Amino acid sequence: MAEQQGSEFRAGSLPEVKFDANGLITAVVQEATTHEVLMVAWMNRESLALTLETGFTVFWSRSRQKLWKKGETSGCLQRVREVRADCDADTLLVLVDQTGPACHTGERSCFFQPLPVAAPGS
Amino acid sequence: MAEQQGSEFRAGSLPEVKFDANGLITAVVQEATTHEVLMVAWMNRESLALTLETGFTVFWSRSRQKLWKKGETSGCLQRVREVRADCDADTLLVLVDQTGPACHTGERSCFFQPLPVAAPGS
Repeated sequence: MAEQQGSEFRAGSLPEVKFDANGLITAVVQEATTHEVLMVAWMNRESLALTLETGFTVFWSRSRQKLWKKGETSGCLQRVREVRADCDADTLLVLVDQTGPACHTGERSCFFQPLPVAAPGS
Repeated sequence: MAEQQGSEFRAGSLPEVKFDANGLITAVVQEATTHEVLMVAWMNRESLALTLETGFTVFWSRSRQKLWKKGETSGCLQRVREVRADCDADTLLVLVDQTGPACHTGERSCFFQPLPVAAPGS
């Protein structure tokens, strides 16, 4: 990838986001159009750089201990529209165009298991 | 809180969500009406139980190592409409009615710092 000038992204340079003791940062993935929260995954410095450089999400698989391009085998890629860090710069919000379901179960979003909440004051 | 019957929530019992090695689970907080992702915070077993029982978000502050009822001092409470676990049951999505700004900076959402993303194929 060619280097870009000025404040634009340059390969090798990253905004100052904070990685945890394991070198990871939490990434919340949200569908850019529907605003549905699709999944949460983790990025290390390399996967964040690849995500910003390629425009497709790449995560760090904690179970497999390797880089993981989302949809590489399933075809359910996530094209990145925006990445935003939070106020502490230790969490990322990634807005994507999701192809197919985001969840390996076939659900559109990974968040499909409701927990019971009491009504306030009950 | 009185005990409830059957599959409803009972004080002391929790759905089988998975806490990490530090006893914490990641909680993504989303505004129920606007679908804006507001913040990410962490819950331990006690704060999750309090959240489900009271209908207001309670987190575990990793920096202060104590329970933290969101908005307790600022008044910017989060009334909980829904809590959903993800497919692995190791991350939570909390849908809330947010009073005032969610971020301590005064921003509505904590995610206000854009990172530069390359267009795919560039």
